Formats: sequence, C-alpha cells, structure tokens
Amino acid sequence: MSDPFVVVGADAAGLSAASKFRREAPDREVVVFEKGRWISYAYCGMPYFIAGYVDRMSDLLSLSPDEVDERGIDLRRGHEVVAVDPDAKRVTVETAAGDRFERAYGDLLVATGAHATTGPFDVRGLDGAFTLHDMDAAAAIDAYVAEPDAYDPDRADVSAVDRDRVERNAAMPAPETAAVVGGGYVGVEVAEALSERGLDVHVFHRSGHLLSPFGEAVGNRVEEALEAEGVSVHTDAPVEALVGDDRIEAIEADGDRVPVDMAVVGVGIRPNTDLLDGTGFDRGPGDAIRVDDHGRTSLSDVYAAGDCATARHAVTGAPDWTPLGLTANRAGRAIGATVAGDPTPVGDIAGTAAVKAFDTEAARVGILDPDAAEAAGFDPVRETVTAGSRSGYYPGAAETDVTLVADRDTGRLLGGSVVGTDRAAIRIDTLATAIEADMTAPEVERLDLAYAPPFSPVWDPILVAAKVLNGKLDG
Amino acid sequence: MSDPFVVVGADAAGLSAASKFRREAPDREVVVFEKGRWISYAYCGMPYFIAGYVDRMSDLLSLSPDEVDERGIDLRRGHEVVAVDPDAKRVTVETAAGDRFERAYGDLLVATGAHATTGPFDVRGLDGAFTLHDMDAAAAIDAYVAEPDAYDPDRADVSAVDRDRVERNAAMPAPETAAVVGGGYVGVEVAEALSERGLDVHVFHRSGHLLSPFGEAVGNRVEEALEAEGVSVHTDAPVEALVGDDRIEAIEADGDRVPVDMAVVGVGIRPNTDLLDGTGFDRGPGDAIRVDDHGRTSLSDVYAAGDCATARHAVTGAPDWTPLGLTANRAGRAIGATVAGDPTPVGDIAGTAAVKAFDTEAARVGILDPDAAEAAGFDPVRETVTAGSRSGYYPGAAETDVTLVADRDTGRLLGGSVVGTDRAAIRIDTLATAIEADMTAPEVERLDLAYAPPFSPVWDPILVAAKVLNGKLDG
Repeated sequence: MSDPFVVVGADAAGLSAASKFRREAPDREVVVFEKGRWISYAYCGMPYFIAGYVDRMSDLLSLSPDEVDERGIDLRRGHEVVAVDPDAKRVTVETAAGDRFERAYGDLLVATGAHATTGPFDVRGLDGAFTLHDMDAAAAIDAYVAEPDAYDPDRADVSAVDRDRVERNAAMPAPETAAVVGGGYVGVEVAEALSERGLDVHVFHRSGHLLSPFGEAVGNRVEEALEAEGVSVHTDAPVEALVGDDRIEAIEADGDRVPVDMAVVGVGIRPNTDLLDGTGFDRGPGDAIRVDDHGRTSLSDVYAAGDCATARHAVTGAPDWTPLGLTANRAGRAIGATVAGDPTPVGDIAGTAAVKAFDTEAARVGILDPDAAEAAGFDPVRETVTAGSRSGYYPGAAETDVTLVADRDTGRLLGGSVVGTDRAAIRIDTLATAIEADMTAPEVERLDLAYAPPFSPVWDPILVAAKVLNGKLDG
Repeated sequence: MSDPFVVVGADAAGLSAASKFRREAPDREVVVFEKGRWISYAYCGMPYFIAGYVDRMSDLLSLSPDEVDERGIDLRRGHEVVAVDPDAKRVTVETAAGDRFERAYGDLLVATGAHATTGPFDVRGLDGAFTLHDMDAAAAIDAYVAEPDAYDPDRADVSAVDRDRVERNAAMPAPETAAVVGGGYVGVEVAEALSERGLDVHVFHRSGHLLSPFGEAVGNRVEEALEAEGVSVHTDAPVEALVGDDRIEAIEADGDRVPVDMAVVGVGIRPNTDLLDGTGFDRGPGDAIRVDDHGRTSLSDVYAAGDCATARHAVTGAPDWTPLGLTANRAGRAIGATVAGDPTPVGDIAGTAAVKAFDTEAARVGILDPDAAEAAGFDPVRETVTAGSRSGYYPGAAETDVTLVADRDTGRLLGGSVVGTDRAAIRIDTLATAIEADMTAPEVERLDLAYAPPFSPVWDPILVAAKVLNGKLDG
C-alpha cells in the first residue's frame, strides 16, 4: 500500500474524501489533482452572489488551498488527469504549464463533477450571453450586470478569478433586460437574482411548468411568485435562437422574438467522464459513472463520487443520477473512510431538493412523476392539498401546498413536494426521512409531528395530505 | 346496536371522535355531553390571545355549537357525566339546571381532558392571581392586564365567556409586574405574552432549567431569549408563597420576596377521571386512564382519548402520558372510526412538542433525559452540537443547537431537541419521523435531507449532530 490515494477533482466530493482519508489514515499519502484554479467552491451559492445577497466571492469558498495544505493533503491545482490505466493502476496527468507525467495510485477517486450544457446555443463569442457553471462565469455575470462606473472589483476577491474576463464584462454597458433560458432550479434562482439587480427578466422553459422535477403544484406557485415580482415566465416556449452579432440582442422562442441585452443559458449538465474513456467502465443513468453502495466503479480500486457518479435511489433501489451538493460531500466522506480501511456506505439518495423564488420556498423528494413511478413498477396515486402553515388564528399562517405520491398496492410513500411562504421547504425533510424509512402513507398520517400555533396547526400540512391521500388509497 | 355512541367532553378528542363517527356511521346516534359552556377551543392559543397576537377570543374556537349541530351531532352543553356503570352500560348525567338522569350507551368515549393544578397555592379569592387552563381564565387575564379605560370588551366576543369575571378584572388597576410560577412551555408562552403587553415579568422555576422536558440545551437558550427581552428568569427557585390579602402583592421564592401585582400559576395538570371512580378502570402514568393501541380502556366498550388518557410511546412501547393537542385529535378521530366499525389504531406518540420564546424556537421529541432512558432499559449516549441553519455565506444563518440521544448498543435514536431562531422548531419533525421509524443514529447521518443555501447548509444541523454522536458511539 505504498502507492497514494489519488483524487481527481478538488471540489465537494474530492476534498471531502481527501480530508476524511487524511484523518483516518494519517500515515498514508493522498494527492488531489485539480485541473483548474478553483477549489471547494459553493456552486449552489453563485445565484445568491449574483443577486447581491453575498458580498464577496471568497465567502463562497469553504476551503482555501492553504487550509487544504494544512490538512496534510497534497493538492495540485492546474493538473488535469487525462487518462486512467486501471490495469497498471496509473493516471496520466497534464499540467497547465504543458508538462505530462504518470502517477501510480493505490486507490483512485474520480470526482470530476459535471459541466453545463448549452443545448444548441453557443454562448461563446456573444457578449452578454453566459452559462452559469463555474465561479468565473458568476464573476463575469456579476460584473456585466453592474453599471460600469458602479462595479466594485473587490466583489471578485479571489486570486483564482479570471480577472480579464471580469474587467471586460464590467466595462460593458449594463443590461436592462435579461433572458434566462431553462426554468430548472438554477434558472429560477438566476431569474430572482437578476430581478433583484433591477433587470427586467424573462424566463423561457421548454415544458409546461417551471421546475419540472418538482411537479406541477410547485411549478404553478413558483411561476406566480416570479410573476408577482415582475418576472415574465414563458412556459411551453423552447428557445430557438440567441440573436446577436457581437452582443446578445434578442431571444427567439416559440415563434416570438423578445429583445434582451443579456442571456443566461442553463439547460442542463453532463457528467465529466472523459478521463475514463477507453477503460470500459460501466455507465449509469445520465451517462454518469455507475457505482455501487460503497462508491466503487466497475474498475478495480477506482471509486467515483459527486456530480460525475450515480447513487442508489432510496425508492427504486436502482442507480440514479441527481447531482447535488450533499450527495457529493457525503459520498466523498464515505469513500475517504472506506479507502482508509473503514468500509462505509455512501448512502442512498432520495432526490431531495429545495429552491426559493423570492419569498416562496419549494422542495421535492422521491418520485413525483406518475410516469416515472409506473416505469419503476409502482401504481402511483397522487394528491395535492392546500393547508395552513400555522394555526389559522396565528398571524403569518400561509397556504402550503403538499403533494404526496404513494403506491396503491402497498401504500408505500414514493414522493412528495411542499411549496409555500412559511417554513415550507424545510418540511420536505420529514418526507425524505419517511421515504428513506420505507414508510407507508398511513404511517405518515399517524406521525407525531410537532404542533405549536406559531409553527404548525394541529394537523400539519403533511398530515393533512397523508389523510386525504389515504382516503383515495382506500377508495 | 340501538344505544348511541356517547362522548363525554366536547373538545379536541371528543368532537374529533363524534365528527368522524357521524361521517362513517351516518345512521347511528352520537351524543356529546359537555359539562361546561365552552367547546372546541384552542387551549394552545390562549397565550397568544393574552399576548395580543390574536384579536378575538372567537378566533380560537374551531367549531361553534351551531356547526356541531349541522354535523348531526347531538351536543348537550351544561351536562356533566358524573358516573359510569360499565356493567349496565349507562352513564349518569347532571345538568347545570340541577336535573339528573341516566343514559344508556353502546360505546362510550371518555374525553374529559385535564385540569390545572396550582400545587400548594390557592389562587381563588386573590385578585390578580390566576391559573391558565380555560378560556374564562384567559379572558380574565386579558382583562386584568389592560388599563381599565383601554380594555376592549369585544376581545372576549364569545357568548360562553364569564362576563362578570371579565368585567371585574377589567375594572381593576392594570398590573405593572407579573410573576409566572412554573417554567414549563405554558409558563414560557405566558411570560412572553405578558412581556409583550408591557409588564415587567419574573418567571420562577423549581429546577435548574426552564422547559425541563426539553433538556438543558434548550433551557439555556430559552432563558437567554427571555432575558434578552427583559424577562427575569429565576431557576432553582421553588415558589413558597403567594403573598397578599385581597390582591396579590408579592412572591416568596427561594428565600426572596419579589413584589408583583399579578401572578399566573401553572405548575402542572392532572387528568379528569372522577367519573370513572369505582369502576375499577386501569390507570397508567400520571394517573391517566390507561388505553390500548385502539384507545380502549380496561372497561368493555369504554374508550378514552385526549388529555385524560395514556398513549403508547414510540420509543419505549409503554403507555405514557404527554397530553398534547395532536394526540387528542388523532386518537379521537381513530376511535370515531373504530366505533363506527373500521378499527383504526390511535397511533403512537413520540412526545413531540414545540414552543417559542420571542424569536427563539425550540422543540423536543422522544427520550432526552439520560435517567429516563436508563429507566427504559437503554444505555444512552447524548451529544449537543451548534451548527448553522443556512450556508454560512447566506444572510440570516443562525446558530442552531441540536441534541441527539441514542442507545449505545443498538445505535437506535431515542430522542432529540432543536433550538434556534431560524426554522429551528419545525426541524424536530425529521427527528420525530426517524424515531417513529426506529432509525439508528448512523441511518440518520445518511439521510438525504434538503440542501439549499437559504434553508440549510450542505450538512443540516441534524446531520452534523448525528455525525458527532456517531463518532461518540464508535468510541
């Protein structure tokens, strides 16, 4: 075991693994190769930086390179792993300076993340058009949105930032109208962010409701929330073209042309797996690297975690690809322990996700879509209720919509969503726990949830939803 | 089955049972005897009425007598059931008008609730001294607190209110200083309420921390929250006497004398079980009526539910007495279904409770006290962590203290508490669900809880607590 634990990628999964391994196996070597300059940044925080809720880009970094160093981790930024030889147990590394070398590994963790796709739209070379999938893009967007004479360069206060790009964008005239292409959760967050910065914002979404994986009940409420704040929501409106020569001028969608002087395209992400090309590794959903319950790939001594890897879904038991921050952190940490000699399962995912649109909070878990439930072998029954978040007489009680899906035969809870303005999103954790415990809807109805007038009515909205769903299951 | 379903008590449990029974068995008779004039009032809302958060007493009623009537329920107010003959299946009823009669029942539900105890202190005949356990007391307190010329009699806008008592209290000089005797959750809520009404408030509590069943971590934070708003908290300060001739003048506690011109005594409650005296019924903890998992007492065809009855504890599997609103509603509803011919378990309780003190929210579930855990046969390991409620960079992140207790041998989660200012209390529902699902602390650590910067950090405070506790379990 003299060869090191080699980790590819220095974000949530990679650094969680390296840190845990370092603590558990202090005498063994761990090397982290990161192709870029950024490490350990909070991808999920970028919209809030753009919104101006966060003052400094450095606030979004959970670990500095120095802190990683202090942990005894050999971090090599500007080092891209371009190939893996699983038989020889060696990786090939290319440095930003143009060098190329091989490095042997005892165990290897692929934590390469994912990259934003832009669909048919090429935003490169078109001023004012962006994709949001890294900190350089966030810094550029933030600079572009600002009035040239009002931009505070200290906002992008990290040495890794692409300063030329920031300065170029800061110098451009500030936009007044923006298009967000894609109404997934990042799209919704960016729409809020740009609206908070004073822009007239249009969101274009291909299908009938924003936040498709959250279901129609959430989509409806979030659309209302955005529109109440002046955001124009275009659903069933696939974008056909970004129009402009040097700078974005308009969006063509669904036969209409909407003039804009900014566009943020976020139509999807794809796992980064090129380094494993030619190894014959097994792929799973979303073309992600398929792993088992300990994060092991089909290649011997090669693990994968984070946005490039699958995880087992708590409802179906099958591999799933739902790239999210906790999954990455948790799997990295578990793999660090496993490689250090303490076999630790990475844990199932339940597809738990939360998002806000101004004061409206929404969250989802499990399988909400009836077609997906049927495809997984269930006979789904779905019900949405609207119930108060607090006792009716208590000030601040707000309408909360809860959707539950259960299997008709077994009553098993398959999925759920919550949307509202008062402590709505955090309520999803109750459903996530129930789903991971394989609870039935009747068991959920009998849960002893907290009742206190300022926080919940006697019958919490989740209990009301379970009660109504059970009535339907009995029928 | 020609004899009716007789329900004793027209509050949460009784009216839930009668309503469910009426829907499920529309052809059978249901009679509800209520000794007083009030029905279906929200006991838990009274402190918020006193605080002035709720404008009208009628807002606290969930059902009016007319609405009960419209449901086809034969409601008899001013009818006290004074005896039960379980062999003859008859109850003896005394009316407020002095009549006495017997009534046969097919099934009987005892939903008589509980009454406030005042310990050694007799508040009767002492102006300015109150116990808070019914709406008449709430109305009287509200009137006493008001300046005589500023009192709005429309606040007590329910015909059932004891108007003489209200007018007498409204006419008295308004108090400036109040003592709350007993620092349980009602005591904390009343302290906040009286402070919001401008009084200088002292809370006296017998033991070392307020909210004893919530554990020390919660007690500490709630004491800080009260004191930050000017409430004086006296712990380890058993009250020895209420001093005064006609009107309260001072509190003697722990050797000190604190002058006050108001006192609210809330040192405990006791189940109302007199009507079953002589029947030989089984009692459980707290001298409450012991029931099985369908709410059946030891007497044939006699059920009990609500604050007068036990419920099975999800952790110990043993009968427990934790009178709370959801337990009453849920048990009543289940018994209504059972009596109508659809046997329905009343559900376990997990001892879930929540309370607020100004902006601080606290909640508890399961077994927190190590001695209680040992008495139930466990080897408890307890850990308290302080973690952020949101991503550190997101505005509004607040320190949240989570306490978890697990059994050393099995890892099973036994109890927990959460306290903080940002969506803290509602997080207890996640722990309640985990406890009712018999989850272990390692399973809790692997839960896929929602991560979104405005609502939760990557590692939710609950996950952080589970992680730290598991480290201790491994050690």
